[in-house]
Amino acid sequence: MESHLSERMKPMNPSAIREIFKFAGLPGMISFAGGNPSERTFPAQELAEVSAKLFAEKPTEILQYGISEGYAPLRELTKARMREKFGVGGDDDEVLMLTGGQQGMDLALKTLTNEGDAVIVENPSFIGALNAIRSYRLRMVGVPMDHEGMNMDALEKALQENPDVKLIYTIPTFQNPMGVTMPLARRKRLYELAVQYDVMIVEDNPYFELRYYGEDVPCIKSLDKTGHVLFCGSYSKTVSPGLRVGYLVLHKSLLQKFTVAKQCVDVHSVNLPQMLVYEYIRGYDFDAHVKLCCDIYRVQRDLMVSGLKKNLAGLEAQGVRFTQPDGGLFVWVDLPPEKSGYELFERLVERKLATVPGSTFDPWERRDTPGIRLNFSMPTPEQIESGTKIFGDTIREFLK
Amino acid sequence: MESHLSERMKPMNPSAIREIFKFAGLPGMISFAGGNPSERTFPAQELAEVSAKLFAEKPTEILQYGISEGYAPLRELTKARMREKFGVGGDDDEVLMLTGGQQGMDLALKTLTNEGDAVIVENPSFIGALNAIRSYRLRMVGVPMDHEGMNMDALEKALQENPDVKLIYTIPTFQNPMGVTMPLARRKRLYELAVQYDVMIVEDNPYFELRYYGEDVPCIKSLDKTGHVLFCGSYSKTVSPGLRVGYLVLHKSLLQKFTVAKQCVDVHSVNLPQMLVYEYIRGYDFDAHVKLCCDIYRVQRDLMVSGLKKNLAGLEAQGVRFTQPDGGLFVWVDLPPEKSGYELFERLVERKLATVPGSTFDPWERRDTPGIRLNFSMPTPEQIESGTKIFGDTIREFLK
Repeated sequence: MESHLSERMKPMNPSAIREIFKFAGLPGMISFAGGNPSERTFPAQELAEVSAKLFAEKPTEILQYGISEGYAPLRELTKARMREKFGVGGDDDEVLMLTGGQQGMDLALKTLTNEGDAVIVENPSFIGALNAIRSYRLRMVGVPMDHEGMNMDALEKALQENPDVKLIYTIPTFQNPMGVTMPLARRKRLYELAVQYDVMIVEDNPYFELRYYGEDVPCIKSLDKTGHVLFCGSYSKTVSPGLRVGYLVLHKSLLQKFTVAKQCVDVHSVNLPQMLVYEYIRGYDFDAHVKLCCDIYRVQRDLMVSGLKKNLAGLEAQGVRFTQPDGGLFVWVDLPPEKSGYELFERLVERKLATVPGSTFDPWERRDTPGIRLNFSMPTPEQIESGTKIFGDTIREFLK
Repeated sequence: MESHLSERMKPMNPSAIREIFKFAGLPGMISFAGGNPSERTFPAQELAEVSAKLFAEKPTEILQYGISEGYAPLRELTKARMREKFGVGGDDDEVLMLTGGQQGMDLALKTLTNEGDAVIVENPSFIGALNAIRSYRLRMVGVPMDHEGMNMDALEKALQENPDVKLIYTIPTFQNPMGVTMPLARRKRLYELAVQYDVMIVEDNPYFELRYYGEDVPCIKSLDKTGHVLFCGSYSKTVSPGLRVGYLVLHKSLLQKFTVAKQCVDVHSVNLPQMLVYEYIRGYDFDAHVKLCCDIYRVQRDLMVSGLKKNLAGLEAQGVRFTQPDGGLFVWVDLPPEKSGYELFERLVERKLATVPGSTFDPWERRDTPGIRLNFSMPTPEQIESGTKIFGDTIREFLK
């Protein structure tokens, strides 16, 4: 039946990460490849209590059809919390609940782009977003990243040279895969450029509450006075990814079309997870829970960073640098420009360490991409210790 | 921000049915407009028990990221049940779990059509599918329905005249909106035509287990020897619509691309509803539950049909005919060809009866569509009695 495939899907392949996960599961393999939140952060007991209460008190609301815009109490709570706590969303904004943050990108592309348009992405960027963009047959314009996020001069040049750009996709905080955070000045310039060129921004910000060091940097959406910013948020990293509860904060003039688009793809998101998240946040101390998540991940992050410091010592002169993220789940290792992250990844697999090569996050999947992503949320302390040792040993051989 | 909208979404409007639901909720209004399953059919107590058990025993499986193809035990159960009980799916077929049956249409269109292609739809047909087709910028070719489903000579003509047809979308059993069922001979011819013209069929069959009279008619997928049929099923009508658990049975050569498409739109469906449905079917007598649903709806259907028989008596000579469905949730009333279902709908609203005009289900939303849909799953017996009386009185005036 392959002859029946659409042009948009013909060139698309299963996520390289999923293929890598096959290695990651082999016996004796240490995995820095994952991207999952740690199970230790799941408020399982609280959600069990809330679930029992909901089934006892509101079975029909759980089981009957729901509202395309989302479960109203959670929409309201999300709107109020994001506005009061983070300045995200104002009088002219609305909240649309999503089946996971990924759906925000799908709906944004569906509602705001035409086939053949260009979309600006950070290079490297999150593979889920890159694949969504590919699936809409859009042209990707990659803007290079440094350790303070997207390079703004390169962005301006990209906007000048590509008048058909419709969207800028950015993960400004603890970026996936690099772990870096865009400072406020860059965020302001990014927003100003978007307004100047009248291009929409999708601010994908699933990690920003997982901050282990330093002060919050205001979300780009909090700077938005014109409606150019769509904020894509998620409860996947602070409550549970398996519940698939995400949300968009977007200008009210866009809500209706986004809602129609959502009706076309899944009618509405499942009621129960939205009700669980709502009752959980309402009934328990969510801020304390987020702090607990941060406490757990800070230890992991510190182990990874100190392991890399120890095992990569002296390699900076040869062009090896790693990010030291203030939050999120990932560290990125820059290799010398002529070195392929994919080749390093292959050597690491032989040494029983699974990672994700930079090519996975490159808009064109170039195997010579000189970088590699390491995850610190999933491995045990012992695995981080021995994994960073393997990493250091392998990279030293690799650079010879 | 409206200037930023995509060409695909610019012409799309919120579902007319949702607008009608605003009327349906007005005080004193009787509603035959809905399409929801009756809350009386929800196995709420059993799902509450299963949920408590799952949270106690498998919290991590509930809360961690899941598999794009779906929760493996439910995939297996669905595959085995559909194959053994209904002959749907064989050695060359796979099951992909969905976020509600609607997602099956979204993924089929994404994976099997290009912008500008043609899709054959029954006229009238389900608005959710029509809107999904619109959202992919496809050309709709409507094939007229009679009281035995899609007219096969018209279908053959449509296939001859439109070589760019990629998909035939059909609801063969207790069709929405007409309530009619395609007999086996037509199903065979439909399948043969699809093979002859090498066109895929999406068999959307959410109601087929809700049969109140007569014998099962084999699903089109059970005739499939070539992989041309995608069967779109759902637990929305037999367990709960709010849980959004649907599935596709499709040729194994298509599974990978459909899975990639699903990763692009929502990564995976929520784990918990899939686990709930699995444990519910496994732990309780699901066949007995389906029978109970049928027992509940049979009474409703009989009240609606006898109410219409009584109140529309003598109108057949004037061109008023209604379907007497053997299952599902809907009755359709044909009006004389020159009469507008939309005008009748407006008069009925004035008389405090909400219905859905045929125009809603017309591929081109033509207001002169001479038909109207009545739902019998939601109203009370008293409402069916007084609603059919209002309907008869109003239509008699309307025909004058």
